[in-house]
Amino acid sequence: MASKVRLYVEHPLGEGQLVSLSREQAHYLFGVMRMTAGTVLSLINGRDGEWDAEVIEAGKRGGVLGCQAQTKPMQMPPDLWLLFAPIRKERMSFIVEKATELGAAKIMPVQTSYTNNGDRVRLEKLQAQVVEATEQCGGTFVPEVTAPTKLKQVLANWDVTRTLYFCDEAMIGEAAGFNGPAPTNGAAILIGPEGGFSPDEREMLKNLPYAQIISLGPRILRAETAAVAALTLWQAALGDWK
Amino acid sequence: MASKVRLYVEHPLGEGQLVSLSREQAHYLFGVMRMTAGTVLSLINGRDGEWDAEVIEAGKRGGVLGCQAQTKPMQMPPDLWLLFAPIRKERMSFIVEKATELGAAKIMPVQTSYTNNGDRVRLEKLQAQVVEATEQCGGTFVPEVTAPTKLKQVLANWDVTRTLYFCDEAMIGEAAGFNGPAPTNGAAILIGPEGGFSPDEREMLKNLPYAQIISLGPRILRAETAAVAALTLWQAALGDWK
Repeated sequence: MASKVRLYVEHPLGEGQLVSLSREQAHYLFGVMRMTAGTVLSLINGRDGEWDAEVIEAGKRGGVLGCQAQTKPMQMPPDLWLLFAPIRKERMSFIVEKATELGAAKIMPVQTSYTNNGDRVRLEKLQAQVVEATEQCGGTFVPEVTAPTKLKQVLANWDVTRTLYFCDEAMIGEAAGFNGPAPTNGAAILIGPEGGFSPDEREMLKNLPYAQIISLGPRILRAETAAVAALTLWQAALGDWK
Repeated sequence: MASKVRLYVEHPLGEGQLVSLSREQAHYLFGVMRMTAGTVLSLINGRDGEWDAEVIEAGKRGGVLGCQAQTKPMQMPPDLWLLFAPIRKERMSFIVEKATELGAAKIMPVQTSYTNNGDRVRLEKLQAQVVEATEQCGGTFVPEVTAPTKLKQVLANWDVTRTLYFCDEAMIGEAAGFNGPAPTNGAAILIGPEGGFSPDEREMLKNLPYAQIISLGPRILRAETAAVAALTLWQAALGDWK
């Protein structure tokens, strides 16, 4: 764990740049974390890498930080998307948090035939969790969370040069993992809902020229376990864990 | 997801074997799941594989099931243990559930210098979660959850022929995964607490002849993410996902 506080801000970051704080940020830094003028923390904004910044003014309703030096360059994750069918609340939060830690570039809730609660996706909350996970994991890139969209619609607009991996229970017990060369034009992992894909969806997915079935071992994994396992194997085989 | 109900019982399972139900089990099958005489479900006991069983008597306070045929042989997971420093409640539940799905043979909470809440481990609850996860994931083996023990004590009694993998933040950014031959005498993965290992512990771990440091990519992972990622990579490289 990084011991220095890391804070996400919208503001541009650069040498000598002053960053004014919102009331909420001021409350967190000066109320909760008890920082005072002179304390140094880390700032990220998802675009300019990570910067050391010093508290210049600390107030109850706001404050000012001054950027000092860049401590990490901007690091882009591999071009890997995670598509998942929304599941119940805590488990969905978990997927979003873990996808951020594991370096997904884009996180896309997709509604499938057997998806139960696509309407209950609280996008703002998921976006806040992505920001918090980025602060925590030391990354400089904040993945985008897209609005829930029907799987069929997502596939209708798919760039066919992007490989789509999907996990199917029919593959249980087959050798797990990602084989073959790294996709040249980005990749995506699709995790089905708790009830699996419908027969129609499964048939459609199998016939997509850009789709590949993968296996995740001999046991049935919950959706959030499958998401973490698939992202891990992809990153280790083809992504930025190599 | 398996659509047939899977229930864990303590009772021996075999052809023609009658299994009497506790009040709690009867409530679940007949009250919650609305089963009646003649319904077929799956039974596991962690020793005899998976069996189809028919409801013979359904009562409010109990009932009787009759074993029909074995539907899966007993399948042992690889000899892989997960050692982890207890973390806060939901995240610890998560580790235990995921370790079961991912096929750990033994789950061991270990107290380290920086462990915050070793005393708060509710062993019975964790064991119940392991049983529930086994029912859900289609496995036939129920991993053991051991009582929380100090890491130093665990290592003092270690069988030196068992490889111990541990994750260290000093390795962040190194190539991830498990290399080298599969251990001949079992393996264990040790996940440190949120604050990492203490300098003393790190030094001790590095000097153990049976220990190997592993990397889990360029970002800092939360303890439960690290547990899932490490179990996944091990199973895919050396375990039963091959």
